[in-house]
Amino acid sequence: MSLMSDAHLSVSDGPGAVLSRLRETAPLVQCITNSVVVNVTANALLAVGAAPVMADIPEEAGECAAFASALLVNLGTPTAEQRAAMTAAVAAARASGTPWVLDPVGVGALGLRTGVARDLLAHRPTVIRGNASEVLALAGAGSGGRGVDAADEVDAALDAARALAERTGAVVAVSGAVDAVTDGARTERIAGGSALLTRMTGGGCSLGAVVAACVAAADGPDAAFAGTIAAHAVYAAASERAAAVATGPGSFAVAFLDALAEVDAVDVSAPERFATEVPA
Amino acid sequence: MSLMSDAHLSVSDGPGAVLSRLRETAPLVQCITNSVVVNVTANALLAVGAAPVMADIPEEAGECAAFASALLVNLGTPTAEQRAAMTAAVAAARASGTPWVLDPVGVGALGLRTGVARDLLAHRPTVIRGNASEVLALAGAGSGGRGVDAADEVDAALDAARALAERTGAVVAVSGAVDAVTDGARTERIAGGSALLTRMTGGGCSLGAVVAACVAAADGPDAAFAGTIAAHAVYAAASERAAAVATGPGSFAVAFLDALAEVDAVDVSAPERFATEVPA
Amino acid sequence: MSLMSDAHLSVSDGPGAVLSRLRETAPLVQCITNSVVVNVTANALLAVGAAPVMADIPEEAGECAAFASALLVNLGTPTAEQRAAMTAAVAAARASGTPWVLDPVGVGALGLRTGVARDLLAHRPTVIRGNASEVLALAGAGSGGRGVDAADEVDAALDAARALAERTGAVVAVSGAVDAVTDGARTERIAGGSALLTRMTGGGCSLGAVVAACVAAADGPDAAFAGTIAAHAVYAAASERAAAVATGPGSFAVAFLDALAEVDAVDVSAPERFATEVPA
Repeated sequence: MSLMSDAHLSVSDGPGAVLSRLRETAPLVQCITNSVVVNVTANALLAVGAAPVMADIPEEAGECAAFASALLVNLGTPTAEQRAAMTAAVAAARASGTPWVLDPVGVGALGLRTGVARDLLAHRPTVIRGNASEVLALAGAGSGGRGVDAADEVDAALDAARALAERTGAVVAVSGAVDAVTDGARTERIAGGSALLTRMTGGGCSLGAVVAACVAAADGPDAAFAGTIAAHAVYAAASERAAAVATGPGSFAVAFLDALAEVDAVDVSAPERFATEVPA
Repeated sequence: MSLMSDAHLSVSDGPGAVLSRLRETAPLVQCITNSVVVNVTANALLAVGAAPVMADIPEEAGECAAFASALLVNLGTPTAEQRAAMTAAVAAARASGTPWVLDPVGVGALGLRTGVARDLLAHRPTVIRGNASEVLALAGAGSGGRGVDAADEVDAALDAARALAERTGAVVAVSGAVDAVTDGARTERIAGGSALLTRMTGGGCSLGAVVAACVAAADGPDAAFAGTIAAHAVYAAASERAAAVATGPGSFAVAFLDALAEVDAVDVSAPERFATEVPA
Repeated sequence: MSLMSDAHLSVSDGPGAVLSRLRETAPLVQCITNSVVVNVTANALLAVGAAPVMADIPEEAGECAAFASALLVNLGTPTAEQRAAMTAAVAAARASGTPWVLDPVGVGALGLRTGVARDLLAHRPTVIRGNASEVLALAGAGSGGRGVDAADEVDAALDAARALAERTGAVVAVSGAVDAVTDGARTERIAGGSALLTRMTGGGCSLGAVVAACVAAADGPDAAFAGTIAAHAVYAAASERAAAVATGPGSFAVAFLDALAEVDAVDVSAPERFATEVPA
């Protein structure tokens, strides 16, 4: 029971309130993530208003997770040291009540990380964020993509996402042309964004970190669902803004960081983002 | 013997045909590469139209190389895990017929990696791509650069490149102001480009990945020579386009990714790129 | 005693002379640094006119430090291999007379790296560069930040910086809104710059590498003090130039690399940068 319970945000407060809270509180987000996207992930957190800390060695990961506001565990390039750090960090996060996000990059396509991801589920992630192929594979229902591609469509993964949410207690987010976020009972879809986000490395991986930041900012019993929706709305709004000025994938990546700093509560809460009907 | 042999591209089809094929087929390029350039390498592959997968741990590298379209092995920061992953990946690539590119970054200047590169030659790389100093050192003829500098000129490395190609069966590419690509018997030179490519990290390293993508796209018995020439022509065309709008090395790197997405078959096949006489 | 002693630069030559010398000599700067900033660090060195080499494995780190012009050791993501490489590199640097810079990222906040940093002090770094929290922690006087934040102000760390300089023989630089550089006896402050430098990852970490480059360029008995001041003046001038054209943190990072290539001796030596009074 928190003394600050009246400060908790829920879905009805809207994604804009979560973004504003994030900028007031600058949550410290620990990332154990892959070498390809570690730079853009830190930059995305800084741009949106959070603070990154990339402690990813076994000797420091648990220590850091105990004082971080939230934790991201991303399986993109899981070295032996990172795998040990992940185990230490999620155990400390769970013990300290630090919310944590699992991004099962490439699960289904490659054997080792599929096993690692399934083991991590026992530590009860707060949120699981992936593409349709990864969510299907993690739920035990998919054929696996080829590496980090999203061979499957979001709608085809909705049932698996709901089942995974019910089984693990996590909020599950499936990224795609129209994103879906579910806690098993409720499902929200977030439309908009830009396909250019898939032409830059780290478009999805850095979203996992911003999910962690938004969950930390929302705080309270509905934080996982409200924060995850907010992060996807921030990414949709920022990628639209960036696409409007970009001339290709290089300039898009630059404009996207600018846009993460520029989007405001009104941009991200635009009702048309949430008008897409959810398939039964 | 391939049932698709009439789809194979050879040098006479021109680099533009290889680029078009790459965009139709989006080859999956596995990269085991250094921490400095891993991000720009993935972004270059995405921009040009290929799909990156950075599986670089021993437990996954061979598994991935068996289903990837092509493999890049870059020696820039060869950790113990990466060295084990390289061995597993090239063995699996050879067994599966996956073409693979060796980029001997810093060979000649640093002892460990010089030995690693020479050991990897036994696994018969499809293409070797480096600067003049690295090619000279790998051929056993050079004095070594200082780290990743290209202290030697392309022409001074031509004989060594031809000898290395004959000895290993690889196509050998030497990058410089005017690039040279040889299979031992044939030598093609590719002119143009921009010196700004040497002022951004990963200009050469990401080219190795795009060579892998182009070789996969070309397919067939002349794929190594045709694909390697095509990749160098793509880089020359894209860097010229980027230099025309850049105001320094930072804006060049951004414009270069945009240009990799923009260059078309006509740009890269411009005959003046291939008009440079090859020294005997 | 050097035969080139008349080429040595001291503080009275001004930071512009150091920058000009850097561009004439293109010092080779070895970096053992964290995965988040390794790319931007290499790009910053290339942009300003130096040459990066990122040899950071134990088997190569000492070999490289013996021929490099300068060495940076940054504790941002200290894997076991990097920690072994750091020990090998600083021992070789000391034996060879290669100047080296210690950047104690996150020291004070995380236990392992705090111990590593204190052990490294025994190898007598030429320069120590950090934010106020890190310098306070390394001097044994601080409370520690939260990760890589600068919770403390530069002025609050001045006494600790002077004491650390006297105890270790290093020049100590404290980065902040107004930077301070001290050798224990002398203290110089460098004003200007842009807060956007704190919104991009690697703003401070890449400065450590440019400090190494400037110390190598200055050469001679006053190189540590003169080079460290020069590097901070280069960063102040370049970040002002970048901020003038940037529209957010993404475009700032790009413009900053352009600006590192563009700033000249006159820009960095502008007297108003050095007019800030030093607190007693």
